Amino acid sequence: MKLKILGSQGALPKRGLYSSSQVLNIKNKYILIDCPEGIQFQLKNYRVKFSKIDFILISHAHGDHYFGLMGLISTYSLLRRTNKLTIFCPKVVSEIINSQMKISSIFLYYDLEIISLNSKDSEKIYESNDFTIVTIPLKHSIYCNGFLISEKNNKRKLNLDLAKKLNINKVYFNKLTKGENVFNEMGREIDFRDVTSKVLNRSYAYCSDTIYFPNIIEKITHIDLLYHESTFLEKDKKKAKLTMHSTAMDAAKIASKAQVSKLLIGHFSSRYENLDLFINEVKQRFQNVELAFDGKEINI
Amino acid sequence: MKLKILGSQGALPKRGLYSSSQVLNIKNKYILIDCPEGIQFQLKNYRVKFSKIDFILISHAHGDHYFGLMGLISTYSLLRRTNKLTIFCPKVVSEIINSQMKISSIFLYYDLEIISLNSKDSEKIYESNDFTIVTIPLKHSIYCNGFLISEKNNKRKLNLDLAKKLNINKVYFNKLTKGENVFNEMGREIDFRDVTSKVLNRSYAYCSDTIYFPNIIEKITHIDLLYHESTFLEKDKKKAKLTMHSTAMDAAKIASKAQVSKLLIGHFSSRYENLDLFINEVKQRFQNVELAFDGKEINI
Repeated sequence: MKLKILGSQGALPKRGLYSSSQVLNIKNKYILIDCPEGIQFQLKNYRVKFSKIDFILISHAHGDHYFGLMGLISTYSLLRRTNKLTIFCPKVVSEIINSQMKISSIFLYYDLEIISLNSKDSEKIYESNDFTIVTIPLKHSIYCNGFLISEKNNKRKLNLDLAKKLNINKVYFNKLTKGENVFNEMGREIDFRDVTSKVLNRSYAYCSDTIYFPNIIEKITHIDLLYHESTFLEKDKKKAKLTMHSTAMDAAKIASKAQVSKLLIGHFSSRYENLDLFINEVKQRFQNVELAFDGKEINI
Repeated sequence: MKLKILGSQGALPKRGLYSSSQVLNIKNKYILIDCPEGIQFQLKNYRVKFSKIDFILISHAHGDHYFGLMGLISTYSLLRRTNKLTIFCPKVVSEIINSQMKISSIFLYYDLEIISLNSKDSEKIYESNDFTIVTIPLKHSIYCNGFLISEKNNKRKLNLDLAKKLNINKVYFNKLTKGENVFNEMGREIDFRDVTSKVLNRSYAYCSDTIYFPNIIEKITHIDLLYHESTFLEKDKKKAKLTMHSTAMDAAKIASKAQVSKLLIGHFSSRYENLDLFINEVKQRFQNVELAFDGKEINI
């Protein structure tokens, strides 16, 4: 999995910086997570091929998380996209998009599926042979979901050198990775466990926007990377509570309690100039932390 | 009048360049003309104070001319704008905006007036003591208006040195600029025409998007600056006709026939890399021409 940050700021635009958005590349599929105004420019800026995006996940119906949808939908049509696009979003966002498409009589050359989310419980919204997407209900001023995206590696990893050494014909390699025993060229049965190992499934969770909400911990325990919003610093805790956002320390507590491998923070309020203060605050509680910034890439 | 170009491209985004938009400063009022996606970033980039904009004019309901409206309306609320904002736009755009505001229950701290345009004839949509805004119906694939913005200088310009030389008391200067005769300190009547001169009213027209449409000429004859779209070069005339856009030569013909002082061209298709070709094409027919580019400023 590879994550690219397209925007790292909160709701108000800051010179040269965009509102929160990311694109996740998983098993040759591209998932756009949140879609603020200007997303087209960021996709261009960071050389993400427009047509590659198969899925768009929208966390909630605040403008800085979905105002770029209509532009993208429309540009795809101008570019004569033909492959299907699936959008998962809160019901109110699908109503807005459907109403705008109807009023403006836009013609689409591709199949657009908009799937409304309205469950207050976590639900698996997508599953393929390669990965799953599960919602993580968050606690914000309006209905809001985070998303947990997890690889599904059904095959085991072959120790190629050992397999050759054991005189196994390569036509049997596939069977071994599927967990089946085979016979080698001398007729000896080879246990698949001896030449293959389990592949760990990597997982990524995007949690924005939310006030400190420990209910999410059980959903994200031991994941490889957690993106958690940290709009404010602890010194502005009151503002965080009022607007139902998190502080850097809130994000650190969640990461620590969930024992995630790495924490990525973002959705910074435009009031802060020195983002190192966010890192310092997190490190009081959780060490393996990075700042999201526009253009950053992370291998998960 | 001072014009600032915020975007100069056609519908498809190009790395670092935005779709067509401009802000006109006239008599301390700021008029935003067209409002594509990302307009907030361009206003920031080019240091136009958000709060200064009093009027927004939307030419037509294609996304690259109005997809930034909802973001701007919403950001104004986050910034606690209090001064009134007036938007003139085609009926379909006001329907889209009103529907989106209703569905998302956005709360505005300021007075937002959205005035729907649907007349096929030119109409005066705004008049103050300082300027007027008149629509220029254009010919495009959907209902589309250009806009003619003209200063109203009701006062004459005083020749201050001469007025002092003629011993006119300064309390009478205002009367003279209003076109009234006064008496000087020796009791001699002074004809206002002798010490004042007529001030020329400057005017600017924005004509985008449109196919070559000579009907507009009578509306823009002798104006100081004409912005006319030129999405294509003459070699792509067929594409221009098909999409109801103009070529650089079309813009040149209109400027020449209307005898405008200066022509500004923009709304370039993303297919062109060398924009000098546009200038060369125009100059075959009309000399005083400039390219619109993001960030450019023009004194009218």
